[in-house]
Amino acid sequence: MIKITLPDGAVREYEKGTSAYGIAKSISEGLAKKILAASINGQVWDVSRPINEDASLKLLTWDDADGKSTFWHSSAHLMAEAVESLFPGVKFWVGPAIEKGFYYDMDLGDRKMSEDDLAALEKKMNELAKQNNAYQRSERSKAEAIKYFAEKGDEYKLDLLQNLEDGTITFYTQGNFTDLCRGPHVPSTGAIKAIKLTSVAGAYWKGDEKNKQLTRIYGVSFPNQKELDEYLAMLEEAKKRDHRKLGKELSIYTMDDNVGPGLILWMPNGTVIIEELEKLAKETENAAGYKRVVTPHIAKESMYLTSGHLPYYADSMFPPMEMDGERYYLKAMNCPHHHKIFDAEQKSYKDLPYRIAEYGTCYRYEQSGELFGLMRVRCLHMNDAHIYCSKEQFAQEFKAVNDMYLKYFKIFGIDKYVMRLSLHDPEKLGQKYVNEPELWLETEDLVRKVLIETGVPFVEVKGEGAFYGPKIDVQIWSAIGREFTLATNQVDFAQSRSFKLSFTNQNNQPEIPLIIHRAPLGTHERFIGFLLEHYAGKFPTWLAPLQVKILPISDKFMDYANTILQTLKNADIRAEIDDRNEKIGKKIRDTEIARVPYMLVIGEKEMNEGKASVRRQGKGDMGAIEMDKFVADITAEIKERREE
Amino acid sequence: MIKITLPDGAVREYEKGTSAYGIAKSISEGLAKKILAASINGQVWDVSRPINEDASLKLLTWDDADGKSTFWHSSAHLMAEAVESLFPGVKFWVGPAIEKGFYYDMDLGDRKMSEDDLAALEKKMNELAKQNNAYQRSERSKAEAIKYFAEKGDEYKLDLLQNLEDGTITFYTQGNFTDLCRGPHVPSTGAIKAIKLTSVAGAYWKGDEKNKQLTRIYGVSFPNQKELDEYLAMLEEAKKRDHRKLGKELSIYTMDDNVGPGLILWMPNGTVIIEELEKLAKETENAAGYKRVVTPHIAKESMYLTSGHLPYYADSMFPPMEMDGERYYLKAMNCPHHHKIFDAEQKSYKDLPYRIAEYGTCYRYEQSGELFGLMRVRCLHMNDAHIYCSKEQFAQEFKAVNDMYLKYFKIFGIDKYVMRLSLHDPEKLGQKYVNEPELWLETEDLVRKVLIETGVPFVEVKGEGAFYGPKIDVQIWSAIGREFTLATNQVDFAQSRSFKLSFTNQNNQPEIPLIIHRAPLGTHERFIGFLLEHYAGKFPTWLAPLQVKILPISDKFMDYANTILQTLKNADIRAEIDDRNEKIGKKIRDTEIARVPYMLVIGEKEMNEGKASVRRQGKGDMGAIEMDKFVADITAEIKERREE
Repeated sequence: MIKITLPDGAVREYEKGTSAYGIAKSISEGLAKKILAASINGQVWDVSRPINEDASLKLLTWDDADGKSTFWHSSAHLMAEAVESLFPGVKFWVGPAIEKGFYYDMDLGDRKMSEDDLAALEKKMNELAKQNNAYQRSERSKAEAIKYFAEKGDEYKLDLLQNLEDGTITFYTQGNFTDLCRGPHVPSTGAIKAIKLTSVAGAYWKGDEKNKQLTRIYGVSFPNQKELDEYLAMLEEAKKRDHRKLGKELSIYTMDDNVGPGLILWMPNGTVIIEELEKLAKETENAAGYKRVVTPHIAKESMYLTSGHLPYYADSMFPPMEMDGERYYLKAMNCPHHHKIFDAEQKSYKDLPYRIAEYGTCYRYEQSGELFGLMRVRCLHMNDAHIYCSKEQFAQEFKAVNDMYLKYFKIFGIDKYVMRLSLHDPEKLGQKYVNEPELWLETEDLVRKVLIETGVPFVEVKGEGAFYGPKIDVQIWSAIGREFTLATNQVDFAQSRSFKLSFTNQNNQPEIPLIIHRAPLGTHERFIGFLLEHYAGKFPTWLAPLQVKILPISDKFMDYANTILQTLKNADIRAEIDDRNEKIGKKIRDTEIARVPYMLVIGEKEMNEGKASVRRQGKGDMGAIEMDKFVADITAEIKERREE
Repeated sequence: MIKITLPDGAVREYEKGTSAYGIAKSISEGLAKKILAASINGQVWDVSRPINEDASLKLLTWDDADGKSTFWHSSAHLMAEAVESLFPGVKFWVGPAIEKGFYYDMDLGDRKMSEDDLAALEKKMNELAKQNNAYQRSERSKAEAIKYFAEKGDEYKLDLLQNLEDGTITFYTQGNFTDLCRGPHVPSTGAIKAIKLTSVAGAYWKGDEKNKQLTRIYGVSFPNQKELDEYLAMLEEAKKRDHRKLGKELSIYTMDDNVGPGLILWMPNGTVIIEELEKLAKETENAAGYKRVVTPHIAKESMYLTSGHLPYYADSMFPPMEMDGERYYLKAMNCPHHHKIFDAEQKSYKDLPYRIAEYGTCYRYEQSGELFGLMRVRCLHMNDAHIYCSKEQFAQEFKAVNDMYLKYFKIFGIDKYVMRLSLHDPEKLGQKYVNEPELWLETEDLVRKVLIETGVPFVEVKGEGAFYGPKIDVQIWSAIGREFTLATNQVDFAQSRSFKLSFTNQNNQPEIPLIIHRAPLGTHERFIGFLLEHYAGKFPTWLAPLQVKILPISDKFMDYANTILQTLKNADIRAEIDDRNEKIGKKIRDTEIARVPYMLVIGEKEMNEGKASVRRQGKGDMGAIEMDKFVADITAEIKERREE
C-alpha cells in the first residue's frame, strides 16, 4: 500500500500502482470524469500513470491552470494528427500550450497552408476527437527513438532528441499519430469538445531568422461549446475595444517615425487621463505618508554595476552614451536613484518607514517586433515608490500597500484579480536567490499572512521569486474578461546591502532596512491601454478628457451656451461648446461617438428656465435639469470618482 | 554744420568736428559731467572723438549697459597701469569688461600674484585714478604698432596685431600706460571713484589648456563709494543666500557621483516646491486655454536633422545611443516633439491658436567645469509650451504670454525685470537669419507694440535674434539685486516650414502657422535656485515644503497636537509635530532655522481653549489664536499665494 496525501492534508492508503484516475474514482465518479491531469509531488502527470510510492496529490481539472495547459497541449497533438492526415509527409517541430490555447510549428515542404484550410482542419479535428482515442504514454530508449524518427526522415525530432538524455524519453500516441513528447496529456481526445483554429503564421525554426521558415497554426479549444462561444464573443468585443483603435479615435496618443517605435507621444486627451491618474496616486500616497521625489532619467554605468542590473539586465536597457570618458545609461528602473535619495542624509529609526514615490519615466529596450501599442513600449511612466522599513515594520507596510491595491481595484471596477506570490527555491539559495534562508521564510510568511488576512485571492509559485526577495505579480481582468498583468510588488533584502544603505536603530546601531518596491497602478502606458479596453473608451466622468459638451440647438443660444461653459469651467469641469452649424441630431450623434459623458442640449425653453436638457452617455435623455443642480451632481460624481 | 539726431527724434545742428562731450555740454553741464561714452550711429565712441558727419547720437551714462561696460573696460586699463608700476616687465593679453566688472589676463614671468597683493594694487589704482589722467586715443599704422610692441618685447600684443587690419589700429594711453585697444574709454581716470579687486585666478592663454597659464585678476569698480559698498554688501548677502548652501540645509536637492554631475536628485522638500510651481503653471495655462501633453525624452537623429539642431547644436546635446541601426538622442528641447503632436491630426483655423504645454525634461551637455549648483545643470525641467497661431492671432497671443510673465512676477515679488528684445540684422538675411524680410519687420513690430502697450521695460538689441525669429530674453533681479536670466521667448516662422506644419485656413487653403516658444517660469532648476536666494530660503507659505510645525510644550499635549495635525491635514496643509523630548525654546529655534512659516506652540492653556499660540517665521509671537480661525487664515494665504 502507498500513502496519498490530498490537498486538504488528509492521507489515504491505496494499492501500489494505482493511478490518479483510480483515486479520483474512489472519491467520486463525477470528479473522475472531470480530471485532466494530476499533480504528483508537484509534477504534472497523466491521470492514468501508475503511482508506486507515497505521494502528495492534487487532481487537476479545467479550473486549474495546469489542467488547462494539459488540455491545450493535447489539443496541439490532436491538431497535428489532423494535419498529418490532410498533409501527409508533414514534419513537426514543437507544439506547446500557450497563455490561451496552443500552436504547432511544422514544415509542410512545398505546400502552403492558408486561413481557408483551417475550417477543413477543424472539421478533421472534431472527427478525431469524437473517436475518443486515448493518449498513450510509452517510454523509449534514445536509440529506439532515433531509429523511429530516422526511418520517418524527420530531421526536426532528431534535432530535439540530441538534447535529451537516455532514460527520460517518452512517446505519446493517440489514434494514428505518434509524437516525441514529455507529456502529460488528458486521458483521451473525447475531452476536447470545442475547437477553433485562429490563425496561420510563419515562424523561423528556433526563432532564428537565418533558419528556414516553418508554418505555425494557432488554435484554442474548450471542454464545451458554450465556453468557446463566450471566448469568441470576447475576442470580437476585444477587437472593438482594441486600445490602439480607440487610442486613435479618441486622440489619446500617437507615435511618430522620427521619434521612434515604442515611444508614446501623449496627446492632450491622453494627458488629461495621465494627470487624473497621477492626482489619484498623489492623493492616495500622500494620505498614506509617502513623500515625493523627482530624479533624472540617466545615471552612470557605476550605478548599474552596484545595483547588479549590469551586465545581467543590459539586454533590456538602452545602449550607453559615452560622455567625458564615462558611460551613461537611461534608467530602466527608478530604484537606484531612490536609494541615493534615501542615502543623501543619515537616517534613524525615527525616519522610518521612509516612503518615497515618483511617477518615474523608465526606458527599456524591447525588440521592435515585440512592441505593441501601449502594452509593450520602450518608454514607461511608472507609478513607482520604495518603502524603506525595519523588519518589525514590514508586515504593516506591506498590508498598507495591499490595501492601496484594493482601493484602486474598487475605483476602477476591477472585480476579478489574483495575486501571484512568487517564492524562492531552497535548493537554489546562493545561486538564483540571495542566501538568507531565514529571511526568505520569514518575509514569505509575512507576505502570505497579509494576503490571507486581507482576503485577497492569491496563488503561490515556488522558484519564481526575484533574486532579492519574494515577488507578487498582480493579474487583473478587464470588463470583457481579458487578463492583464498590472504590476509587480517586490520585497527586497539585497539592494540595501549593495547600496550600503542603513539606519541607526533604537540601540544606536546601524541596521539594514528592508525595501518594498511597489507600483499599484503599473505604468501609464499599460494601465491606460487596459482602461481603454475595460471602459470601451467610455471613461467615467472623472477620467474623461472632455466631461461635458454643450449643444446649442441654434446660434441664437450661443450666449447662453457660453454662460453655461463659464459656470462649468469655474467648477473645474472640462467642457466645450459644439458651435458647428449642424442639426442637433448630428451634434448628439457625434458627441456619442466621442464618448463624452454628458451632453447639455439647450434651446429656447432651457434658456428661459436656466436649465439644460441632459443626456448621459449610454443612458440617453435625463430630462431638463437646473444648472445649479447639474453642477452639484457632476461635481460630486467627479469628486467621488464614481463609475457612472 | 552737421545734423545730430537725438534719441527723442529731435535734430540739432553742430559744427563739424564737434564731440559727444561738446553736444552734452550744449544741453547741460551736469549731463556733460555724467557721460561716459556715446553711441554714434549704433557704435560706441569716446565722448571726445570728433564727429564729422550727420549722425544719430545717444549719450551713455552709468545707467546704460554700454556706459557701464566702457567704465569697466577703462578700469581694466587702470588696473594694468597699476600692475605695470608694481610688477615692471609684466606682459598683458586681453582685459575686457564682463557682466559685473572686468578682468585682465597677464604674464608675470616668474612672479606670482596672490590675493594679498590685491590690496596694494587697489591702493595704487586709487592713486592713479586721483591723478585724473585722460584716456587718449591715437590711430597707428600696423607697421608702427608692430614696431612698438616688438621693441617692448611683448609677444602677446604682437599676436593680437596679426589679426588686425592696417587702418583700424588704435592705441589708448592714460598716465604712463599705453595699450593696443579698440576702445572706447571714459574721458579720464577720475571717473573711477571706488574699486574692489575681487580675485586672482589662473587662465590658459586663449582658453587652451595646452598653452601657458596666465594670471587673471578680477575686479569691479563704481562711480561712487556708496554703490561699491552696496555691491559688496549684496555679495555678502548672496553668500548667505547661496542656493547650494540653502539647498543642502533645507534638504531641497542632492547630487551623487554615481548618478553624474549636473544631474539633480530632487529630495522630498524640493519636490514639494516643484509640484507647487507646476500646479501654478497648470492653473494659469489651463485658464489661458493651453492643453497639456507628455512626450518621451528621446528621438531619432532624423528628428534633429529636420529641426536643424543637428549638426549645429550637437555640442550642447548628449552623445547618441546607437540602437537597431539608428541613433537616438536625448532631447535638448521639447519643440520637435510638440510639433509632432500638432501634426498628428489635421488642423483647421478653428483649432488655432493651438497651445500645448509640458513641463518637459531636457538634457543639455555642459562642460563639467561650467556646472554650477542648480544654475548650470545637465538635466532641466522646463516650463515649456508652444503656441501655433495664424499671423492675425499673433499679437494677441504674444500679449497673453507677456501678461502671464507679469502675473508671475507679481506672485513672486519680482519688482525689477527687463525684457531684452533681440532683433535680426537686415544685412545678414539669408545667412544668420531666415530670409523673410517682411515677416521679420512685421513680427518685430508686433512684439515691440505689445511690449510698449503692456508697459514692460525693454531694450532692443539688433543682430541677436534667433535664426527663425525675434527673441526675448527675460532678465529678473532677486530681492538682493542680483541679476538672473529667467527665460527666453521666441517667435518662430521657420520650424513650421522644416516640419511641414500647416493648417487649413478660412479659404480652405493650407497655411503655415507661426509658432511662439515660451517658458515663463524658466526651468525648475534655475527658478528654484533663484527663489532660494530671493527668499533666503524663507519661502512664502504656499511654497514652503513644511507649512506648519506643531510644538507641544510637553508629552502631555501630544493628543491635542495630533488633533491639530489631523485638522491641518484635512485642510491640505503640510504640517508636522515636533515630538522630540526637548525644551520649547530649542524647538522654536530649530523650527526657525528650518524656516517653517508657522509654529503652533501648545500647552495647557491652548489645549483648554482649543487654541494655539502662533509664531510667524521672522515676525515672532502673534498670540493665541483659535484653530478654526488659524486654518481659515492660512488657507486663504495659501490659496492667494500671498508673500506676507
